[in-house]
Amino acid sequence: MTRPTRRFPRPTAMAHLLVSDVVREGDTVVDATIGNGHDTLFLKRLVGSSGEVIGFDIQDQAIAQTRDRLGENNAVHLHLDSHENMSSYLDGEVNAVMFNLGYLPGGDQTVITIPESTLAALKAASEHLAINGVITIVAYIGHEGGSDEALKVDQWAEALCPDHFSVIRYEFSNRKNKAPYLIGIQRLA
Amino acid sequence: MTRPTRRFPRPTAMAHLLVSDVVREGDTVVDATIGNGHDTLFLKRLVGSSGEVIGFDIQDQAIAQTRDRLGENNAVHLHLDSHENMSSYLDGEVNAVMFNLGYLPGGDQTVITIPESTLAALKAASEHLAINGVITIVAYIGHEGGSDEALKVDQWAEALCPDHFSVIRYEFSNRKNKAPYLIGIQRLA
Repeated sequence: MTRPTRRFPRPTAMAHLLVSDVVREGDTVVDATIGNGHDTLFLKRLVGSSGEVIGFDIQDQAIAQTRDRLGENNAVHLHLDSHENMSSYLDGEVNAVMFNLGYLPGGDQTVITIPESTLAALKAASEHLAINGVITIVAYIGHEGGSDEALKVDQWAEALCPDHFSVIRYEFSNRKNKAPYLIGIQRLA
Repeated sequence: MTRPTRRFPRPTAMAHLLVSDVVREGDTVVDATIGNGHDTLFLKRLVGSSGEVIGFDIQDQAIAQTRDRLGENNAVHLHLDSHENMSSYLDGEVNAVMFNLGYLPGGDQTVITIPESTLAALKAASEHLAINGVITIVAYIGHEGGSDEALKVDQWAEALCPDHFSVIRYEFSNRKNKAPYLIGIQRLA
Protein backbone atom coordinates (compact mmCIF):
# COMPACT_ATOMS: atom_id res chain seq x y z
CA MET A 1 0.00 0.00 0.00
CA THR A 2 1.45 3.34 -0.96
CA ARG A 3 1.14 6.29 1.40
CA PRO A 4 0.49 9.78 0.15
CA THR A 5 3.71 11.74 0.46
CA ARG A 6 3.24 14.70 2.75
CA ARG A 7 6.25 16.91 3.16
CA PHE A 8 6.81 19.81 5.56
CA PRO A 9 4.94 22.84 4.18
CA ARG A 10 6.97 25.20 2.00
CA PRO A 11 7.16 28.78 3.29
CA THR A 12 4.48 29.88 0.78
CA ALA A 13 2.14 27.09 1.96
CA MET A 14 2.79 27.98 5.61
CA ALA A 15 1.95 31.62 4.80
CA HIS A 16 -1.38 30.48 3.34
CA LEU A 17 -2.02 28.42 6.45
CA LEU A 18 -1.41 31.34 8.82
CA VAL A 19 -3.50 33.72 6.72
CA SER A 20 -6.42 31.32 6.30
CA ASP A 21 -6.55 30.82 10.07
CA VAL A 22 -7.35 34.52 10.47
CA VAL A 23 -9.00 35.93 7.35
CA ARG A 24 -12.79 35.61 7.04
CA GLU A 25 -15.32 36.29 4.27
CA GLY A 26 -15.91 40.01 3.89
CA ASP A 27 -12.42 41.01 5.08
CA THR A 28 -10.14 43.54 3.42
CA VAL A 29 -6.73 42.15 2.51
CA VAL A 30 -3.66 43.19 0.55
CA ASP A 31 -1.39 41.37 -1.87
CA ALA A 32 1.67 43.62 -1.63
CA THR A 33 3.52 41.81 -4.43
CA ILE A 34 1.06 40.53 -7.02
CA GLY A 35 3.70 38.77 -9.13
CA ASN A 36 2.14 35.72 -10.73
CA GLY A 37 -1.12 36.33 -8.83
CA HIS A 38 -1.15 33.12 -6.74
CA ASP A 39 -1.63 34.99 -3.49
CA THR A 40 -4.14 37.40 -5.07
CA LEU A 41 -6.29 34.44 -6.10
CA PHE A 42 -5.85 32.76 -2.73
CA LEU A 43 -6.92 35.95 -0.94
CA LYS A 44 -9.90 36.52 -3.24
CA ARG A 45 -11.19 33.02 -2.42
CA LEU A 46 -10.84 33.70 1.32
CA VAL A 47 -12.66 37.04 1.41
CA GLY A 48 -15.32 36.21 -1.22
CA SER A 49 -17.36 38.73 -3.16
CA SER A 50 -18.26 40.66 0.00
CA GLY A 51 -14.58 41.24 0.78
CA GLU A 52 -11.88 43.26 -0.92
CA VAL A 53 -8.44 42.39 -2.24
CA ILE A 54 -6.09 45.30 -2.94
CA GLY A 55 -3.00 44.40 -4.93
CA PHE A 56 0.23 46.17 -5.85
CA ASP A 57 2.94 45.54 -8.38
CA ILE A 58 5.35 47.80 -10.24
CA GLN A 59 5.28 45.62 -13.36
CA ASP A 60 2.59 45.76 -16.05
CA GLN A 61 3.12 42.09 -16.78
CA ALA A 62 2.11 41.09 -13.23
CA ILE A 63 -1.00 43.28 -13.25
CA ALA A 64 -2.05 42.19 -16.74
CA GLN A 65 -1.71 38.45 -16.19
CA THR A 66 -3.45 38.61 -12.82
CA ARG A 67 -6.27 40.73 -14.24
CA ASP A 68 -6.74 38.13 -16.98
CA ARG A 69 -6.95 35.48 -14.33
CA LEU A 70 -9.24 37.16 -11.82
CA GLY A 71 -10.99 39.93 -13.65
CA GLU A 72 -11.22 43.40 -12.14
CA ASN A 73 -14.40 43.77 -10.13
CA ASN A 74 -15.69 45.25 -6.91
CA ALA A 75 -13.76 42.69 -4.93
CA VAL A 76 -10.33 43.01 -6.56
CA HIS A 77 -8.35 46.21 -7.11
CA LEU A 78 -4.97 45.91 -8.76
CA HIS A 79 -2.68 48.93 -8.70
CA LEU A 80 0.38 49.52 -10.87
CA ASP A 81 2.29 51.19 -8.07
CA SER A 82 4.88 50.39 -5.45
CA HIS A 83 3.62 48.75 -2.26
CA GLU A 84 5.43 51.50 -0.35
CA ASN A 85 2.54 53.78 -1.37
CA MET A 86 -0.14 51.43 -0.06
CA SER A 87 -1.38 53.89 2.56
CA SER A 88 -2.73 56.10 -0.24
CA TYR A 89 -5.05 53.28 -1.30
CA LEU A 90 -6.25 52.07 2.11
CA ASP A 91 -9.22 53.60 3.90
CA GLY A 92 -9.25 51.60 7.07
CA GLU A 93 -7.86 48.48 8.66
CA VAL A 94 -6.80 45.38 6.79
CA ASN A 95 -6.85 41.78 7.99
CA ALA A 96 -3.89 40.45 6.05
CA VAL A 97 -1.02 41.71 3.92
CA MET A 98 1.06 39.20 1.97
CA PHE A 99 4.57 39.82 0.58
CA ASN A 100 6.64 37.62 -1.70
CA LEU A 101 10.02 39.30 -2.02
CA GLY A 102 12.53 38.98 -4.85
CA TYR A 103 11.71 39.00 -8.56
CA LEU A 104 8.69 38.04 -10.66
CA PRO A 105 9.01 34.34 -11.52
CA GLY A 106 9.30 34.09 -15.30
CA GLY A 107 9.84 37.84 -15.56
CA ASP A 108 12.83 40.21 -15.56
CA GLN A 109 15.13 38.95 -12.82
CA THR A 110 16.81 42.33 -12.48
CA VAL A 111 13.57 43.91 -11.30
CA ILE A 112 13.59 42.98 -7.62
CA THR A 113 12.13 44.27 -4.38
CA ILE A 114 14.64 46.38 -2.47
CA PRO A 115 15.07 46.97 1.26
CA GLU A 116 14.06 50.65 1.39
CA SER A 117 10.67 50.27 -0.29
CA THR A 118 10.04 46.85 1.28
CA LEU A 119 10.59 48.27 4.76
CA ALA A 120 8.43 51.32 4.00
CA ALA A 121 5.68 48.98 2.80
CA LEU A 122 5.99 46.75 5.86
CA LYS A 123 5.76 49.76 8.14
CA ALA A 124 2.63 50.95 6.31
CA ALA A 125 1.15 47.45 6.47
CA SER A 126 1.78 47.16 10.21
CA GLU A 127 0.08 50.53 10.78
CA HIS A 128 -3.06 49.44 8.92
CA LEU A 129 -3.27 46.00 10.46
CA ALA A 130 -6.45 45.13 12.38
CA ILE A 131 -6.11 43.38 15.73
CA ASN A 132 -5.37 39.67 15.04
CA GLY A 133 -4.52 40.63 11.45
CA VAL A 134 -1.38 39.14 9.92
CA ILE A 135 1.44 40.10 7.59
CA THR A 136 3.34 37.32 5.84
CA ILE A 137 6.66 37.79 4.11
CA VAL A 138 8.36 35.09 2.06
CA ALA A 139 12.00 36.13 1.78
CA TYR A 140 14.25 34.75 -0.95
CA ILE A 141 17.98 34.82 -0.49
CA GLY A 142 19.27 33.15 -3.64
CA HIS A 143 19.43 36.27 -5.82
CA GLU A 144 21.81 39.25 -5.64
CA GLY A 145 20.71 41.51 -2.79
CA GLY A 146 18.23 38.95 -1.49
CA SER A 147 20.03 38.06 1.71
CA ASP A 148 20.66 41.72 2.56
CA GLU A 149 16.96 42.47 2.12
CA ALA A 150 15.95 39.40 4.14
CA LEU A 151 18.29 40.38 6.97
CA LYS A 152 16.86 43.90 7.12
CA VAL A 153 13.30 42.55 7.19
CA ASP A 154 14.30 40.12 9.96
CA GLN A 155 15.83 42.89 12.03
CA TRP A 156 12.77 45.09 11.60
CA ALA A 157 10.38 42.27 12.53
CA GLU A 158 12.40 41.05 15.51
CA ALA A 159 12.38 44.57 16.94
CA LEU A 160 8.57 44.77 16.96
CA CYS A 161 7.21 45.13 20.49
CA PRO A 162 6.10 41.69 21.74
CA ASP A 163 3.15 43.25 23.60
CA HIS A 164 1.72 44.46 20.29
CA PHE A 165 2.97 41.99 17.71
CA SER A 166 3.66 38.30 17.60
CA VAL A 167 6.45 37.51 15.11
CA ILE A 168 7.22 34.04 13.82
CA ARG A 169 10.01 32.79 11.60
CA TYR A 170 9.72 29.49 9.73
CA GLU A 171 12.79 28.27 7.91
CA PHE A 172 14.43 25.18 6.48
CA SER A 173 17.38 25.30 8.83
CA ASN A 174 19.63 22.74 7.17
CA ARG A 175 19.38 24.66 3.89
CA LYS A 176 20.38 28.06 5.28
CA ASN A 177 21.55 30.69 2.81
CA LYS A 178 19.63 28.88 0.09
CA ALA A 179 16.00 28.19 0.87
CA PRO A 180 13.37 30.94 1.13
CA TYR A 181 11.88 31.44 4.57
CA LEU A 182 8.74 32.89 6.09
CA ILE A 183 8.29 35.73 8.52
CA GLY A 184 4.79 36.11 9.97
CA ILE A 185 3.58 39.07 11.99
CA GLN A 186 0.30 39.19 13.90
CA ARG A 187 -1.07 42.26 15.64
CA LEU A 188 -2.03 41.39 19.21
CA ALA A 189 -3.13 44.73 20.62
CA MET B 1 -20.15 40.49 15.58
CA THR B 2 -17.18 39.08 17.44
CA ARG B 3 -14.53 37.15 15.55
CA PRO B 4 -12.97 34.04 17.00
CA THR B 5 -9.45 34.89 18.09
CA ARG B 6 -6.95 32.78 16.21
CA ARG B 7 -3.36 33.33 17.13
CA PHE B 8 -0.22 31.95 15.47
CA PRO B 9 0.17 28.31 16.55
CA ARG B 10 2.36 27.70 19.60
CA PRO B 11 5.37 25.44 18.94
CA THR B 12 3.54 22.47 20.54
CA ALA B 13 0.51 23.04 18.27
CA MET B 14 2.74 23.35 15.21
CA ALA B 15 4.42 20.06 16.19
CA HIS B 16 0.99 18.40 16.27
CA LEU B 17 0.21 19.86 12.88
CA LEU B 18 3.40 18.52 11.28
CA VAL B 19 2.95 15.09 12.87
CA SER B 20 -0.73 14.75 11.96
CA ASP B 21 0.12 15.55 8.34
CA VAL B 22 2.25 12.41 8.19
CA VAL B 23 1.10 9.82 10.74
CA ARG B 24 -1.68 7.40 9.73
CA GLU B 25 -3.78 4.82 11.55
CA GLY B 26 -1.76 1.71 12.24
CA ASP B 27 1.58 3.52 12.43
CA THR B 28 4.23 3.05 15.10
CA VAL B 29 5.19 6.25 16.89
CA VAL B 30 7.25 7.34 19.88
CA ASP B 31 6.68 9.86 22.65
CA ALA B 32 10.27 10.37 23.76
CA THR B 33 9.30 12.54 26.74
CA ILE B 34 5.95 11.42 28.17
CA GLY B 35 5.76 14.18 30.77
CA ASN B 36 2.13 15.08 31.31
CA GLY B 37 1.05 12.69 28.53
CA HIS B 38 -0.45 15.26 26.14
CA ASP B 39 1.62 14.04 23.20
CA THR B 40 1.09 10.38 24.17
CA LEU B 41 -2.67 10.89 24.00
CA PHE B 42 -2.40 12.86 20.76
CA LEU B 43 -0.31 10.09 19.18
CA LYS B 44 -2.64 7.34 20.41
CA ARG B 45 -5.59 9.06 18.72
CA LEU B 46 -3.64 9.33 15.45
CA VAL B 47 -2.51 5.72 15.23
CA GLY B 48 -5.68 4.13 16.67
CA SER B 49 -5.95 0.65 18.15
CA SER B 50 -4.15 -0.90 15.17
CA GLY B 51 -1.10 1.30 15.75
CA GLU B 52 1.47 1.46 18.52
CA VAL B 53 2.67 4.26 20.78
CA ILE B 54 5.93 3.67 22.62
CA GLY B 55 6.68 6.16 25.38
CA PHE B 56 9.66 6.96 27.56
CA ASP B 57 10.17 8.91 30.75
CA ILE B 58 12.63 8.69 33.61
CA GLN B 59 10.05 9.78 36.19
CA ASP B 60 7.51 7.45 37.82
CA GLN B 61 5.11 10.36 38.15
CA ALA B 62 4.94 10.87 34.37
CA ILE B 63 4.41 7.18 33.65
CA ALA B 64 1.82 6.76 36.42
CA GLN B 65 -0.33 9.74 35.49
CA THR B 66 -0.24 8.91 31.80
CA ARG B 67 -1.08 5.26 32.46
CA ASP B 68 -4.08 6.43 34.50
CA ARG B 69 -5.13 8.54 31.60
CA LEU B 70 -4.63 6.14 28.73
CA GLY B 71 -4.47 2.70 30.25
CA GLU B 72 -1.74 0.26 29.24
CA ASN B 73 -2.92 -1.87 26.37
CA ASN B 74 -1.67 -3.37 23.12
CA ALA B 75 -1.49 0.05 21.55
CA VAL B 76 0.42 1.94 24.26
CA HIS B 77 3.71 0.91 25.88
CA LEU B 78 5.15 3.21 28.50
CA HIS B 79 8.71 2.61 29.64
CA LEU B 80 10.37 3.98 32.76
CA ASP B 81 13.70 4.46 31.03
CA SER B 82 15.71 7.19 29.34
CA HIS B 83 14.84 7.93 25.72
CA GLU B 84 18.52 7.45 24.92
CA ASN B 85 17.86 3.71 25.22
CA MET B 86 14.95 3.76 22.78
CA SER B 87 16.71 1.50 20.26
CA SER B 88 16.41 -1.41 22.74
CA TYR B 89 12.62 -1.10 22.55
CA LEU B 90 12.17 -0.59 18.79
CA ASP B 91 11.88 -3.47 16.34
CA GLY B 92 11.55 -1.61 13.09
CA GLU B 93 10.85 1.79 11.66
CA VAL B 94 8.79 4.48 13.32
CA ASN B 95 6.70 7.19 11.68
CA ALA B 96 7.07 9.90 14.31
CA VAL B 97 9.08 10.67 17.42
CA MET B 98 8.07 13.61 19.60
CA PHE B 99 10.30 15.38 22.13
CA ASN B 100 9.38 18.06 24.66
CA LEU B 101 12.62 19.11 26.31
CA GLY B 102 13.10 20.65 29.75
CA TYR B 103 11.33 19.56 32.93
CA LEU B 104 8.01 17.90 33.75
CA PRO B 105 5.40 20.66 34.16
CA GLY B 106 4.14 20.51 37.73
CA GLY B 107 6.98 18.15 38.67
CA ASP B 108 10.52 18.48 40.01
CA GLN B 109 12.08 21.35 38.05
CA THR B 110 15.59 20.11 38.76
CA VAL B 111 14.95 16.93 36.76
CA ILE B 112 15.58 18.14 33.23
CA THR B 113 16.60 16.67 29.90
CA ILE B 114 20.30 17.14 29.26
CA PRO B 115 22.22 17.54 25.98
CA GLU B 116 24.12 14.21 26.06
CA SER B 117 21.10 11.95 26.42
CA THR B 118 18.89 14.18 24.28
CA LEU B 119 21.38 14.01 21.41
CA ALA B 120 21.80 10.24 21.83
CA ALA B 121 18.01 9.86 21.70
CA LEU B 122 17.73 12.11 18.64
CA LYS B 123 20.39 10.10 16.87
CA ALA B 124 18.55 6.86 17.68
CA ALA B 125 15.26 8.39 16.56
CA SER B 126 16.72 9.53 13.25
CA GLU B 127 18.11 6.04 12.62
CA HIS B 128 14.70 4.42 13.15
CA LEU B 129 12.74 6.95 11.16
CA ALA B 130 10.72 5.68 8.19
CA ILE B 131 10.86 7.64 4.94
CA ASN B 132 8.58 10.69 5.32
CA GLY B 133 8.58 10.09 9.08
CA VAL B 134 9.09 13.09 11.35
CA ILE B 135 10.82 14.01 14.59
CA THR B 136 9.55 17.05 16.48
CA ILE B 137 11.45 18.75 19.27
CA VAL B 138 10.03 21.57 21.36
CA ALA B 139 13.01 23.26 22.99
CA TYR B 140 12.63 25.42 26.09
CA ILE B 141 15.26 27.98 26.92
CA GLY B 142 13.88 29.63 30.05
CA HIS B 143 15.40 27.19 32.57
CA GLU B 144 19.03 26.70 33.61
CA GLY B 145 20.81 24.71 30.89
CA GLY B 146 17.90 25.04 28.49
CA SER B 147 19.52 27.36 26.00
CA ASP B 148 22.72 25.28 25.93
CA GLU B 149 20.68 22.14 25.21
CA ALA B 150 18.61 23.95 22.55
CA LEU B 151 21.74 25.23 20.83
CA LYS B 152 23.25 21.74 20.70
CA VAL B 153 20.05 20.30 19.26
CA ASP B 154 19.97 23.11 16.68
CA GLN B 155 23.54 22.45 15.64
CA TRP B 156 22.93 18.71 15.33
CA ALA B 157 19.75 19.23 13.27
CA GLU B 158 21.23 21.89 11.00
CA ALA B 159 24.10 19.55 10.15
CA LEU B 160 21.76 16.81 8.88
CA CYS B 161 22.31 16.12 5.19
CA PRO B 162 19.66 18.00 3.16
CA ASP B 163 19.43 15.11 0.69
CA HIS B 164 18.21 12.82 3.45
CA PHE B 165 16.48 15.09 5.93
CA SER B 166 14.37 18.20 5.76
CA VAL B 167 14.82 20.32 8.89
CA ILE B 168 12.52 23.16 9.86
CA ARG B 169 12.73 25.65 12.70
CA TYR B 170 9.67 27.57 13.89
CA GLU B 171 10.23 30.29 16.44
CA PHE B 172 8.71 33.42 17.89
CA SER B 173 11.49 35.68 16.72
CA ASN B 174 10.65 38.83 18.67
CA ARG B 175 10.70 36.81 21.90
CA LYS B 176 14.12 35.23 21.39
CA ASN B 177 15.86 33.82 24.46
CA LYS B 178 12.47 33.44 26.10
CA ALA B 179 9.91 31.56 24.06
CA PRO B 180 10.15 27.83 23.33
CA TYR B 181 10.67 26.93 19.69
CA LEU B 182 10.13 23.96 17.43
CA ILE B 183 12.59 21.94 15.40
CA GLY B 184 11.06 19.49 12.95
CA ILE B 185 12.97 16.80 11.06
CA GLN B 186 11.55 14.74 8.20
CA ARG B 187 13.35 11.85 6.55
CA LEU B 188 13.31 12.32 2.77
CA ALA B 189 15.35 9.37 1.57
